[in-house]
Amino acid sequence: MAEDTISAVTTALGEGAVGIVRISGPKALAVGETLFKAASGKALGAYPVNTLAYGHVYDTDGSLVDEVLAVYMRAPRSYTAEDVVEIQCHGGVQPLQKILQLTFAAGARPAEAGEFTKRAFLNGRIDLTQAEAVMDIIRSRSEASLKLAARQQQGQLAGELRSLRKQLVDIVVNLEAVIDYPEEDIEDVTYGRVQESLSTVCSGIEHLLAHAHTGKILREGLRTAIVGRPNVGKSSLLNALLREERAIVSQYAGTTRDVIEEQLLLDGVPLVLADTAGIRATDDFVEKIGVEKSRQLLADSELVICVIDGSDGLTDEDEAILEAAAGKPCVVIVNKSDLPQQVDLAQLRERFGADKVMTLSAKTLVGIEAFTAWLKSYVYGSKGTLGDGAYIQNARQERLLREALAGLQDAEFAAQDYLPYDCIVIDVRSAIDLLGEITGDTVQDEIINEIFERFCIGK
Amino acid sequence: MAEDTISAVTTALGEGAVGIVRISGPKALAVGETLFKAASGKALGAYPVNTLAYGHVYDTDGSLVDEVLAVYMRAPRSYTAEDVVEIQCHGGVQPLQKILQLTFAAGARPAEAGEFTKRAFLNGRIDLTQAEAVMDIIRSRSEASLKLAARQQQGQLAGELRSLRKQLVDIVVNLEAVIDYPEEDIEDVTYGRVQESLSTVCSGIEHLLAHAHTGKILREGLRTAIVGRPNVGKSSLLNALLREERAIVSQYAGTTRDVIEEQLLLDGVPLVLADTAGIRATDDFVEKIGVEKSRQLLADSELVICVIDGSDGLTDEDEAILEAAAGKPCVVIVNKSDLPQQVDLAQLRERFGADKVMTLSAKTLVGIEAFTAWLKSYVYGSKGTLGDGAYIQNARQERLLREALAGLQDAEFAAQDYLPYDCIVIDVRSAIDLLGEITGDTVQDEIINEIFERFCIGK
Repeated sequence: MAEDTISAVTTALGEGAVGIVRISGPKALAVGETLFKAASGKALGAYPVNTLAYGHVYDTDGSLVDEVLAVYMRAPRSYTAEDVVEIQCHGGVQPLQKILQLTFAAGARPAEAGEFTKRAFLNGRIDLTQAEAVMDIIRSRSEASLKLAARQQQGQLAGELRSLRKQLVDIVVNLEAVIDYPEEDIEDVTYGRVQESLSTVCSGIEHLLAHAHTGKILREGLRTAIVGRPNVGKSSLLNALLREERAIVSQYAGTTRDVIEEQLLLDGVPLVLADTAGIRATDDFVEKIGVEKSRQLLADSELVICVIDGSDGLTDEDEAILEAAAGKPCVVIVNKSDLPQQVDLAQLRERFGADKVMTLSAKTLVGIEAFTAWLKSYVYGSKGTLGDGAYIQNARQERLLREALAGLQDAEFAAQDYLPYDCIVIDVRSAIDLLGEITGDTVQDEIINEIFERFCIGK
Repeated sequence: MAEDTISAVTTALGEGAVGIVRISGPKALAVGETLFKAASGKALGAYPVNTLAYGHVYDTDGSLVDEVLAVYMRAPRSYTAEDVVEIQCHGGVQPLQKILQLTFAAGARPAEAGEFTKRAFLNGRIDLTQAEAVMDIIRSRSEASLKLAARQQQGQLAGELRSLRKQLVDIVVNLEAVIDYPEEDIEDVTYGRVQESLSTVCSGIEHLLAHAHTGKILREGLRTAIVGRPNVGKSSLLNALLREERAIVSQYAGTTRDVIEEQLLLDGVPLVLADTAGIRATDDFVEKIGVEKSRQLLADSELVICVIDGSDGLTDEDEAILEAAAGKPCVVIVNKSDLPQQVDLAQLRERFGADKVMTLSAKTLVGIEAFTAWLKSYVYGSKGTLGDGAYIQNARQERLLREALAGLQDAEFAAQDYLPYDCIVIDVRSAIDLLGEITGDTVQDEIINEIFERFCIGK
């Protein structure tokens, strides 16, 4: 349990009706009682725990700061599993900052980014995948990604990983038993069983890795470029997609301050259209993208939508764009299917794969629904929807899982080749540690610090 | 009491650790219980009132949305004086919007801007000056303006106004008595008393109006321009002010979306430097402002700081700027007092007033403190600090007070001239209504709507 008491504003910065200052640690109640005077005259600690008390915060000179509600949550039944006091005040910058300053004056210190959640982890209330899910919930951009994160926060991934880890521990225990008591060993049976168990665990990890893609797209959106020579109907296609009832458009500030990304939410699939700020304001912007701009857009994209004009046949420009896109995950949209067709579909299908070439009319909307269905299956896989299973949350987890998988595959080969049991144990032990690192069971301090630094202040 | 149940996000929009959805109205508990399932299995209504319950919000399809705390506050002991349920979830856009949508699905309707506070007013929990103070607290930009708003929110201004109003009612009651029972009247005494009472009330209103200036500056900041020809030391002066320990700089988005204003907080006095985005990034920006730009800056300013170079004598450029500034509230800073002086101080003092011309050295900092003291007294008046009295909060209140004052002065003249009592009564009654309009005692529905529309959603 931490020795010191920390505090921070836990609500978003900006102007809101209500804001919250959270204080956590052994002195939380003392700090809270220094600032807060209940209208009833009772001390905050005299209220039943978890009960909102109405009153005021006063400055050190006795002048009134704000009318507030305060609540005391006693350890371990709080977010951090420590003593926590929360003060709900008016949600302006001044009252929040003033009250925060007063908590410092009363003995708290500023919480670092992610420190509340870190304490919840260090105090054993949640594991590392649940802690990481907290930020995913806050930063989720679509309903699907929210649902995914909420499930992780309940510990679904951690449960899956612990089950895999348990199976690996069993393998080690069995192998060490036969190392210690070689007289009990029937080598064929032991190697066979080990190989089978390892294969089961590897399948489990492979399954998680196979869906890493889905989780990442739901969280971060699919960076998508719509390319094609002028007048093939790029902006019409975009508008047709936008016209779909389920499409929601919103703007997010990109990672660099000056780039605005446009996000379309198509039936739960978030498409991030990079570098196309102002798409809606000027439909012409998309239309004007020619070969050169298309090539630039391709560089950053995870999915390329190549639009060609089916009524016109392929020009050299089309060819240049298709060639550039061929190296990327792409889909070819043959637009203007309402007009007589000139394009050789068979040839395109042979080149890009039959499932990657779709005809549609952005004008009559015929084929639009099939295209959004294709996008959905591209993200969710054949099921076409978010399954009930656990999903990997981020690159850290994916990297650790891939390392564990590689080690376990080595161990499988070792078992096939009847290598000494010790070699297998070493590989399996290392995989156990790697899985433990994901949930935080075996993780090092510096890695923990690195993870929580990425949180926002107040969480 | 309102018939329908409303809901809104009450915390600031953006990414925070915690966000709150507030539901208010007769169905608040029913709506809350539809969404929220306590981990204990108990219904929210089964918890003691004002107690935070830990649990989860589920979607209509039964899938998990978020881990939350929920609390039920029973009418009339809540913000709106109605039944209120608040749900504290993770502070991201997705969880907040999702939970808000679920409250609508369960029978609440979106709260209009200011509607929670409007209900608190309509239900008689607060008066109109207290309601207006809520937004002032949220939007306060300095500690001084926060203190001012917090005091108003406690009803200080309303108390002052009610006391003035009571005195006016007494005048009317007394006059009506002598109108009804003229045989009791001794005209000299009655006219004398009325005049005396009216004069007391007028002084009270005049006192409030005299300090309207302070409240406005503390709330909105003092729009200040620093002007002068190049190289007189404008940016050095700015830096010297910034270097003062008490100076806090922050950026606020201006009323138009593209303008960033720079705000310096000098010992509680907020100076808003308009159109000087990037002052800190490029000190040179201020320095480059010449005559033309200075003239433009003057147009919008409430205070002009003219800087001249005391070691150099006045040039034609200086003269042009001083001439332009002379029509504005301005102070002349004769900079570079550490060098031999060329400027004719006596002549400047005669022209602008002795108290408006100050010598200082932005380099050695001699005179900087005297200048910040001057700024303070400019805002707070001779007391140099925020007094304990009530302050007017906004233009609406000021206009109503001025109208009331004019009417009462007419009544005073009427009493002096021994005009019929009825004439005096009409004027005094109208002033009573005007004061009541400030506190909301006599205000019309359309004015109430207009006031609350300026609030933010969720308040």
